[in-house]
Amino acid sequence: MSNQKNHEIRLKSRPVGVPSTDNFEMVETAVPTPQSGQVLVRNSYISVDPYMRGRMVDRKSYVPPFQIGETLQGHAVGQVVASNGNDKFAVGDFVQSMNGWREWYASGGADLQKFEPQVPIQSYLGALGMPGMTAYAGLLRIAALKDDERVFVSAASGAVGSVVCQIAKAKGCYVVGSVGSDEKAQYLKSLGVDRTINYKTCGDLNAAVAEAFSTGIDVYFENVGGAHLEAAINNMRPGGRIALCGMIDMYNATEPPPGPRNLAICIGLGLTLRGFVVSSHYDMLADFHRDMTNWAKAGKMKWRETIVDGVENSPKAFIGLFKGENVGKMVVRVGPDKAV
Amino acid sequence: MSNQKNHEIRLKSRPVGVPSTDNFEMVETAVPTPQSGQVLVRNSYISVDPYMRGRMVDRKSYVPPFQIGETLQGHAVGQVVASNGNDKFAVGDFVQSMNGWREWYASGGADLQKFEPQVPIQSYLGALGMPGMTAYAGLLRIAALKDDERVFVSAASGAVGSVVCQIAKAKGCYVVGSVGSDEKAQYLKSLGVDRTINYKTCGDLNAAVAEAFSTGIDVYFENVGGAHLEAAINNMRPGGRIALCGMIDMYNATEPPPGPRNLAICIGLGLTLRGFVVSSHYDMLADFHRDMTNWAKAGKMKWRETIVDGVENSPKAFIGLFKGENVGKMVVRVGPDKAV
Repeated sequence: MSNQKNHEIRLKSRPVGVPSTDNFEMVETAVPTPQSGQVLVRNSYISVDPYMRGRMVDRKSYVPPFQIGETLQGHAVGQVVASNGNDKFAVGDFVQSMNGWREWYASGGADLQKFEPQVPIQSYLGALGMPGMTAYAGLLRIAALKDDERVFVSAASGAVGSVVCQIAKAKGCYVVGSVGSDEKAQYLKSLGVDRTINYKTCGDLNAAVAEAFSTGIDVYFENVGGAHLEAAINNMRPGGRIALCGMIDMYNATEPPPGPRNLAICIGLGLTLRGFVVSSHYDMLADFHRDMTNWAKAGKMKWRETIVDGVENSPKAFIGLFKGENVGKMVVRVGPDKAV
Repeated sequence: MSNQKNHEIRLKSRPVGVPSTDNFEMVETAVPTPQSGQVLVRNSYISVDPYMRGRMVDRKSYVPPFQIGETLQGHAVGQVVASNGNDKFAVGDFVQSMNGWREWYASGGADLQKFEPQVPIQSYLGALGMPGMTAYAGLLRIAALKDDERVFVSAASGAVGSVVCQIAKAKGCYVVGSVGSDEKAQYLKSLGVDRTINYKTCGDLNAAVAEAFSTGIDVYFENVGGAHLEAAINNMRPGGRIALCGMIDMYNATEPPPGPRNLAICIGLGLTLRGFVVSSHYDMLADFHRDMTNWAKAGKMKWRETIVDGVENSPKAFIGLFKGENVGKMVVRVGPDKAV
């Protein structure tokens, strides 16, 4: 390791509007030497997620903002490659952490979770990780999905959306997904989704949603905001539930975009809109793992990742999220799958 | 009764924007003669409510639209003054019905509810009627109010709002009400409300709400919409709940007004927005009556009505709702309190 270097990505300036690569800088540092009680971890994959855009704004939120000049954070999976007397982690252990956006790091272990990979390790950043758990908690707890309901999902081919669609299908639901390309629509079809809407080519989104739901929507899983939310509200059934998971449409807005003009519909129909962040729902983790394993075995849960190579390309991968460049989870490969 | 006439109000044309008296016509008819099995009812008070504006629009909703040329409907209280062999109702019985906007009507009884007045009968159109029940269900079930929470109420001196404020105070909550005049603010103070905001004179509503809630809002009871909803969302605490009861700000809008631009806040804070109509919650009626009686006895529940005289003035009373002309419930006196 003596001639190896670590590379990490820092926030150089706060983005205004859509982030550009100029907002980031890559810094080369020495691979850290684990101090007494520490382990050295080499990351294999790091995660880039839309929610990170919010942390680039200097404001109070449910997670503190990233600081300029500091290394960014995010989910990562890697392997312990050296230990200086740590008694909890051994060389070869696979670990998850929030120490993403970098290749190597030293840790005392408190911020690491050991895991035994049953599938390719990058999937623990996607379907089997935070995005999958987000889909699970959002659909089953926040939206309180019942069997055989009628479900609309936006950003439906993404890391969260594609799992939402398949959980709903596994529950016998009629599922319609909104996507931004015909390739993504094809992918959703291959997952068993009943119908897709390409919001870029469908014309009037409200009419397209109305046509796909002649008897209305029971559950809308919101990842996008803006016109999608308005179209969904216009087509909800009495007692319908909307899980507010993300609003990627507005993460880069420099002026607050107009909200849905039709919220008054919620009164007469008794609709519920409920926001959530997955971190409040980790009490469902064991159920999530059990159900995902069973669905995967039964062929009812599939996933894929869009893999970008090289930590130096992680800003580009992150920016690509807002251009719809990913199908499934966007991850960045920053090291070998197996380092030792 | 031979020389007495009935007067009733019909919808003459559908209002565009704020209704005007030209949208209504009063028609003089004979006082009906009860047919075999029918009773004759003389109304004492009729109700005008903001929700009726929605029924003047020709669209599918949770209640069917009013039809042009037909007598309007709404809550009413009155007394049976004659019976032609009806075995369920006797002369002198007090009855509630949806046969408002008129002085007299005949009924077979299926659309009548008998009641024994314990308080002035017009209160059964307000605090002890549909508006009071709306406050009760909205605050305790929809918003799931807990003791000692921090509660914001808009249109707080109105028929619903003034009951919401007092239920919340009875539960030990800190209560702030928004109103449109200093007279209404004074009235709320007399009901024990902790603090009031006059939205017409406070300047920046968001700043005024923030100042009133230095540690944030647990429950917002929404009667207004627009800037009120946006200001409330900006100041909610994590896990906060918003009961969407009414949005009077937009009932007369000819173009859909912009929605709240800050709905994304709901995600990070895990907020719930839930719409409701009281008709879905009448299973709480016995609880409502019991609690209201107990609170009234303990001096914790007071109410008043704004009484307009004469059925011919009911369109004006209705229009006055949108100008903030009422404190407490707006009702129209169309006959004597006791007819027989």
